[in-house]
Amino acid sequence: MKLATLKDGTRDGQLAVVSRDLRTAHIADGIAPTLQRALDDWGFIAPQLERIYEQLNAGKAHRAFDFDPKRCMAPLPRAFQWADGSAYVNHVELVRKARNAEMPESFWHDPLIYQGGSDDFIGPADDIVLASEEWGIDFEGEVAVVTDDVPMGTKPEQAASHIRLLMLVNDVSLRNLIPAELAKGFGFFQSKPASSFSPVAVTPDELGDVWREGKVHLPLRVTWNGTLVGQPNAGVDMVFNFPQLIAHLARTRNARAGTIIGSGTVSNKDTKKGYTCIAEKRCLEMIAEGAAKTPFMKFGDRVRIEMLDVHGKSIFGAIDQQVAPAELTRK
Amino acid sequence: MKLATLKDGTRDGQLAVVSRDLRTAHIADGIAPTLQRALDDWGFIAPQLERIYEQLNAGKAHRAFDFDPKRCMAPLPRAFQWADGSAYVNHVELVRKARNAEMPESFWHDPLIYQGGSDDFIGPADDIVLASEEWGIDFEGEVAVVTDDVPMGTKPEQAASHIRLLMLVNDVSLRNLIPAELAKGFGFFQSKPASSFSPVAVTPDELGDVWREGKVHLPLRVTWNGTLVGQPNAGVDMVFNFPQLIAHLARTRNARAGTIIGSGTVSNKDTKKGYTCIAEKRCLEMIAEGAAKTPFMKFGDRVRIEMLDVHGKSIFGAIDQQVAPAELTRK
Repeated sequence: MKLATLKDGTRDGQLAVVSRDLRTAHIADGIAPTLQRALDDWGFIAPQLERIYEQLNAGKAHRAFDFDPKRCMAPLPRAFQWADGSAYVNHVELVRKARNAEMPESFWHDPLIYQGGSDDFIGPADDIVLASEEWGIDFEGEVAVVTDDVPMGTKPEQAASHIRLLMLVNDVSLRNLIPAELAKGFGFFQSKPASSFSPVAVTPDELGDVWREGKVHLPLRVTWNGTLVGQPNAGVDMVFNFPQLIAHLARTRNARAGTIIGSGTVSNKDTKKGYTCIAEKRCLEMIAEGAAKTPFMKFGDRVRIEMLDVHGKSIFGAIDQQVAPAELTRK
Repeated sequence: MKLATLKDGTRDGQLAVVSRDLRTAHIADGIAPTLQRALDDWGFIAPQLERIYEQLNAGKAHRAFDFDPKRCMAPLPRAFQWADGSAYVNHVELVRKARNAEMPESFWHDPLIYQGGSDDFIGPADDIVLASEEWGIDFEGEVAVVTDDVPMGTKPEQAASHIRLLMLVNDVSLRNLIPAELAKGFGFFQSKPASSFSPVAVTPDELGDVWREGKVHLPLRVTWNGTLVGQPNAGVDMVFNFPQLIAHLARTRNARAGTIIGSGTVSNKDTKKGYTCIAEKRCLEMIAEGAAKTPFMKFGDRVRIEMLDVHGKSIFGAIDQQVAPAELTRK
């Protein structure tokens, strides 16, 4: 099943069911007004949404309309939790190597996760509005899962059953703000502005056998200003799978329905697969040539993040957005 | 105006207006079902709630009932953002000094804020359920504000007008998990389990002239197992006031209605005022005697956090809760 949230002028948008081919959609209003409400009572709501999904795919839905990703908000326009991992440890190692720092060996065994802001997510075709190019604007292509209620102390082997939906993420990062912020010891804050999500969230069964071992075994395609810059396989070099990330999150607390957990920047050791964030490219340049030469994003730059199935069809729809300047003074 | 959220079996509870003396309450159902919904449309909703508040205080509300803090959830049982500052820099300096580390001078000018989990807050009289005493269970007494929509780039001088409510917080911390977690560089995560909030949230006008310069000029009283261990004044030694914390939060992103921002552990340089977290007491012991002797909380320990007005009346009601063991294995 594929679900989207449409812009309707409200904070949480309008839940819609979207056909497998992403061509048509159907309002879920009689069933659940918002995706959060569906997740709050998934066992009761999901089967009703599934019936609409079947009708849509069969071309038999009575009130189907053309699906337009530009009308989408993030599937959860605001969420109660957004926790982002860094499961492609290869990426972390590269970043450290570029600044001549040793990565602790424990990073291969103990997941890195930071708590992100979740009150103001960006739709897949919305502008990334920021005040300054000097902040070092970067994209980060990721896969994320959405859970139902996960009790404190849940182990990895139980955590898989709590995954209800998958999405793609653009975890926008402000690279030039990161060093000073991490030096303070409290983690990312200003350096992680609002994140963007794919037009639709999909249930794990949509992925078939490319969803196994708690990972999505497909390339994540990232295009920057029309040029394909990366297509690493999200199932390769993911050191911690989603159930392990969920268990890490829930070690000392409950995670409630609608919790979003990100994979971190998808990164393969095979550098021929390219990059899903500019920082990684710059690290490779620093290691090879002593200096980074690829600049970060400028106002007007576009980034497109998408995942195609084995038949070349888009699974989640594309995050496709440009960077735009904010007015500097607001009231 | 004073507002509470009552347990009704739902995830977001039932919004209620509470009388100034905390004796009676009145359901706000016909106006807004939940506090988040009220905050989403505050300009329209707040005046209607104010009318009930006036009737309650005059003893003229038709469906008033006895207010019982034990029936309370956190005013926002789940929120879209919980960002916790560390505005009493004195506390940060003490912690560093105890481990013989220099605190960067910039900490006096650049606020420390971390992003906390906000999906599963604890009510004021609910148990703090944790799996292990070995984690180093500590309380942290704090003041917090709740904002409406704060646009990106809002300056401190504009930020004060976005404060809608104030609350008290117990920012439960797992001290023995912090060193390893901070060493990883991504900030707090497992070391910050679910936080607790006071029975009621109050509008700034309730505080009168003790709410000035973006600070609450009253002692925060913390009692541990029946012994008063701290009563530092929240208006003293707060290096960054709430408008400055809000502006820091909103530098690179919008903060949406219902954002909660904490002050950090209230701490005065005058050590005779005691402590609002055990870690601070232990730091003082380490500095004075070379070793910490006060243990962290045990299962069954109680902590009470409260703030009295100049007439000795409780403003927010008391956070009053005990630590309880979780079953270690959950499904």
